[in-house]
Amino acid sequence: MPSEFPKRVTLLGSTGSIGTQALDVVRSQPGRFTVTALSAQSNAALLVQQAREFRPAAVVIGDEAKYETVKAALAGQPETEVLAGAAALADVAGRPDSDIVLTAMVGYAGLLPTVRAIRAGKDIALANKETLVVAGQLITDLVREHNVRLLPVDSEHSAIFQCLVGETQNPIEKIVLTASGGPFRGRSRAQLAEVTKAQALKHPNWDMGAKITIDSASLMNKGLEVIEAKWLFGLRDNQIDVVVHPQSIIHSLVQFEDGSLKAQLGLPDMKLPIQYALGYPQRLSNTFPRFSFLDYPQLTFEQPDLSTFRNLALAFEAMSQSGNAPCVLNAANEVAVAAFLRDEVGFLQMSEVVEECLSRVSYLANPSLDDYVLTDKETRRVAQERLARL
Amino acid sequence: MPSEFPKRVTLLGSTGSIGTQALDVVRSQPGRFTVTALSAQSNAALLVQQAREFRPAAVVIGDEAKYETVKAALAGQPETEVLAGAAALADVAGRPDSDIVLTAMVGYAGLLPTVRAIRAGKDIALANKETLVVAGQLITDLVREHNVRLLPVDSEHSAIFQCLVGETQNPIEKIVLTASGGPFRGRSRAQLAEVTKAQALKHPNWDMGAKITIDSASLMNKGLEVIEAKWLFGLRDNQIDVVVHPQSIIHSLVQFEDGSLKAQLGLPDMKLPIQYALGYPQRLSNTFPRFSFLDYPQLTFEQPDLSTFRNLALAFEAMSQSGNAPCVLNAANEVAVAAFLRDEVGFLQMSEVVEECLSRVSYLANPSLDDYVLTDKETRRVAQERLARL
Repeated sequence: MPSEFPKRVTLLGSTGSIGTQALDVVRSQPGRFTVTALSAQSNAALLVQQAREFRPAAVVIGDEAKYETVKAALAGQPETEVLAGAAALADVAGRPDSDIVLTAMVGYAGLLPTVRAIRAGKDIALANKETLVVAGQLITDLVREHNVRLLPVDSEHSAIFQCLVGETQNPIEKIVLTASGGPFRGRSRAQLAEVTKAQALKHPNWDMGAKITIDSASLMNKGLEVIEAKWLFGLRDNQIDVVVHPQSIIHSLVQFEDGSLKAQLGLPDMKLPIQYALGYPQRLSNTFPRFSFLDYPQLTFEQPDLSTFRNLALAFEAMSQSGNAPCVLNAANEVAVAAFLRDEVGFLQMSEVVEECLSRVSYLANPSLDDYVLTDKETRRVAQERLARL
Repeated sequence: MPSEFPKRVTLLGSTGSIGTQALDVVRSQPGRFTVTALSAQSNAALLVQQAREFRPAAVVIGDEAKYETVKAALAGQPETEVLAGAAALADVAGRPDSDIVLTAMVGYAGLLPTVRAIRAGKDIALANKETLVVAGQLITDLVREHNVRLLPVDSEHSAIFQCLVGETQNPIEKIVLTASGGPFRGRSRAQLAEVTKAQALKHPNWDMGAKITIDSASLMNKGLEVIEAKWLFGLRDNQIDVVVHPQSIIHSLVQFEDGSLKAQLGLPDMKLPIQYALGYPQRLSNTFPRFSFLDYPQLTFEQPDLSTFRNLALAFEAMSQSGNAPCVLNAANEVAVAAFLRDEVGFLQMSEVVEECLSRVSYLANPSLDDYVLTDKETRRVAQERLARL
């Protein structure tokens, strides 16, 4: 069944890279979408500006200290309710006045609002991969129970999702996630020990937020995507391959049981997967720049270097341990990346923190939602302890 | 609706490259397919051998002089009726005892049996591209009228067809047909003037029959495929691009109106598109060799050289003239290729013959089936006349 337009969109994380591009998509498709709610963690000024343009029913500022600022700025706009804090965010995610919730916040913070939105029967445009990494079984069970759509926004997962339309009767043999390799592709561990934050923040192909850009440089992003893919597409661990493809044109591939491969391709531009998730199942005509083979006469592929980029190997290990191990992986990585962005640890030390947390935090085979919350907390404690010893 | 197995298959052209590979597919999928009828133009010995293995209800030998040989050889197999000649072939194509007709004969000879099969309500697995080149409007009208499926077997068109499943609501912006470039990619016209039949028959990637191999070397095959694609996918002339991709791994691509491209990839092996067409919409598990990026670390792309490979330019011209022009193109090319295979003309002279026919045979804007038959005949006369002057 084709979905109806206009769709009412709740956009969580509206001031980040995905959020602002999602609003570009909404702007470029007049009459297709209305914005029901917006949220931001701390960028009050941009949130206010967006609220003035899109006139949502609610805005949520995560940082409660900024509530009064936002409230005052929107005093002349009585149709927009102003809220603050994590509980308000989860509440807004589940309100009945929207059709689809785009989860574009960063990290573990996406989990509870996503759960609330699914329980309220909303389709999810999932840009917050950490939610599936941390609690894949729980989220996919909820999605099934509430019969909602889980539409990936990550370009790789969008690619696979696009390749799977019309193929429901055909089992997947495997998928191949492509990885650009990041700015440090080909470097040795000795070279990686020396890299700076500024170097790590220069991604060759994609313009993204700081946390995901560091994750891309360390290949943790690809590791998180592997786990995300496992849950999104119901795969066994050995059905997921990663190949390094520096041009980022082939966004990922599916191989079916007849050996046929399907791929989705295009210029590296997040607006396309955002638009696809919001418009699904309909592709909306647009004027985004088009790919041409004349500009890319050569596409290249190589194996990822798992001994240099330890994070990817650790992610595969956490996936195979299952239970709360991916939650530990994610929380430890969030702490490590934050420390790297504060210039407190070196590039290679990030995976040391993750590795120590994986070996020290208690393993739970079948965690509940509360267990995930506790695992996340305990992991952050262990990770901080490890950082203090560096 | 998923199709039912076992499917009853009529295989026209069973002793050629596509035909023998189709029987490999049938053999490798026990219980999925039964063979209702087989036909061959002249290879009586192989036809008999196939008939003994697959026990069809009918076999047709095109060359009537070989009827007695086949009849005698199958005397001990009373369940198999033996027939001969073009009329018998068309008759068998329309018999009620099969579900799908695989048209794997070469050239214009495929037209009438295909028309008969469609009129009898059968799905068509189309390996005989000339049918659509010659009479695309007529065939697609018939397909619509009789509500049958036209399932492409050419690897490029199968790729596009595979990329289009589940996308019926999404218009095509353009398609990109990939071309290996053949054995003479990069050569100059001066070099092409000297090439021999033996060189032209050595295709770098695909193992095919003689006629299509020569067409691949001259890029006429790609030209015919452009016209075939126009009809199969309902495209305007300017929606079809050709890109040279020497590795033949990406079999073709579709670009949608949102700018997203989908491609189908795999090793160059005709068994996959044959199996896909016969099994559609179900992909059948198999043990064909699998593609790996480790074996293909580099995929390359370049523009086709239309001034050196004149045939491709002539095909685009015939397509834009429409009417009976593609029929003229095809008939002239069949005569020219046959002469080249008899060492009677040089490689470059083939397109001279085609060009002269396009300018001399009377143009008809809206040809009937009879007009196509007459155009084909007239073109062959003009082409022979041109050959006699060389």
